[in-house]
Amino acid sequence: MKKNIRLTIEYDGSRYAGWQRQKNEATVQQTLEDTLERLTGKKVELIGSGRTDSGVHARGQVANFLTDSRIPPERFSYALNTLLPRDIRIISSEEADMSFHSRFSALAKRYRYSIVNNPSGTAIGWQYFYHVPMLLDAQAMEEAVQYFKGTYDFAAFMAAGSPVKSTVRTIYDAALVKDAPFYHILLTGNGFLYNMVRIIAGTVIDAGKGKIEPGRIPQIITSGDRKHAGPTAPPHGLILEEVYYETIPEDVLQQAVKLDISRK
Amino acid sequence: MKKNIRLTIEYDGSRYAGWQRQKNEATVQQTLEDTLERLTGKKVELIGSGRTDSGVHARGQVANFLTDSRIPPERFSYALNTLLPRDIRIISSEEADMSFHSRFSALAKRYRYSIVNNPSGTAIGWQYFYHVPMLLDAQAMEEAVQYFKGTYDFAAFMAAGSPVKSTVRTIYDAALVKDAPFYHILLTGNGFLYNMVRIIAGTVIDAGKGKIEPGRIPQIITSGDRKHAGPTAPPHGLILEEVYYETIPEDVLQQAVKLDISRK
Repeated sequence: MKKNIRLTIEYDGSRYAGWQRQKNEATVQQTLEDTLERLTGKKVELIGSGRTDSGVHARGQVANFLTDSRIPPERFSYALNTLLPRDIRIISSEEADMSFHSRFSALAKRYRYSIVNNPSGTAIGWQYFYHVPMLLDAQAMEEAVQYFKGTYDFAAFMAAGSPVKSTVRTIYDAALVKDAPFYHILLTGNGFLYNMVRIIAGTVIDAGKGKIEPGRIPQIITSGDRKHAGPTAPPHGLILEEVYYETIPEDVLQQAVKLDISRK
Repeated sequence: MKKNIRLTIEYDGSRYAGWQRQKNEATVQQTLEDTLERLTGKKVELIGSGRTDSGVHARGQVANFLTDSRIPPERFSYALNTLLPRDIRIISSEEADMSFHSRFSALAKRYRYSIVNNPSGTAIGWQYFYHVPMLLDAQAMEEAVQYFKGTYDFAAFMAAGSPVKSTVRTIYDAALVKDAPFYHILLTGNGFLYNMVRIIAGTVIDAGKGKIEPGRIPQIITSGDRKHAGPTAPPHGLILEEVYYETIPEDVLQQAVKLDISRK
């Protein structure tokens, strides 16, 4: 009898060529599939909630796989952790309904983009922060972040040449957290286009540098033109924090609703 | 005219065989001396406040060197940071009195030992936390930490075979900070014997595991016998947080004084 096992996974993406299996490159998916094969004695196909790019981290990536292994579902986390490298950890494992699919069942995702804003950067944790030496204007960044809340065609915030049916996405919540010398840009949305979070981060940083007037962001969105948005911020500042399935937390949805009202 | 330049240095020790220059091994001192030579065109001897072991990190290591370079003292931090790898950062550089010596002028040091206490460990930041999967008893650890405050012969908390004149040291402040699933052991003292912080950390963790009764710690100290103390906790949980020179902060000294009274 096959079971559907759902994993919540944390990883430091520094050493990996992203999530997705690739020829001749170490990836997170490949490392996990190899370890699952070692554990169960059979090839396993692991379905992730989505790809993360080379160098991007995750605190709450979700993936599932079908298995007829007799290892109890809750024990997979322990068994995998004893075999996995220290930069990939299974936070939890559980049996899911057979209909559960990490990608298709996902309702929303939360990402965090982290910046260290001081002259020297940070040595401890350098793998997790984009170093911006120039003093950033917190208020301009705060204002810039707000404009991304809502339902828009985000074509201007997608890497060129990405094939996709629709470029409309909803960002339920967008916030800037300042914890000097660090900044965190938090984005929760029903989906993100290729490089969307990193382009939004690059645009918010450009606002902080005075290169982009925050009030121009709605026009940049409307333009649908990638070249009006800021640069793609580097991958190592990005963390996939959480994938939401059954429900999206109330406070996130309330903020989205409030926003729709304020825009009318 | 020679100047004495004082540097405050942060480093991630993961890639280094410790602070101290060594043949055929990358060390922090060597990396800095090589970079200073590149910058000033002359061999530079860098004096650190003390060694840190292979894999140990620092947020506030202090070092000084003499130079007749015409680079303004405050510019060394910027100039060095452009040449140094991302895991070594110069927080500040300034001219010091010619009598300033990073090691001999140091009054006290503060260390932090960090633990992640959950079944899986942490992938993000795995380089900075000792993973203890077994659930630790916070109260027992809290109690254990307190016994280390004061002036004692810490011979039982020194790696065997370390040549040293006196094994008496004063710990001004010792505290446990819980920030689940993380624990931080903070120790401020006028000096630390070889491996002393890591052996204290190992002993506090043993108290948290129920292997050592916290109330037995004064006897372990009195015994002067290394084999009664806990194991040496691994290096990657250890960070040299700060070196104190001109003054030791009031609150640290007050705690030490209060302690002396309470012990009488």
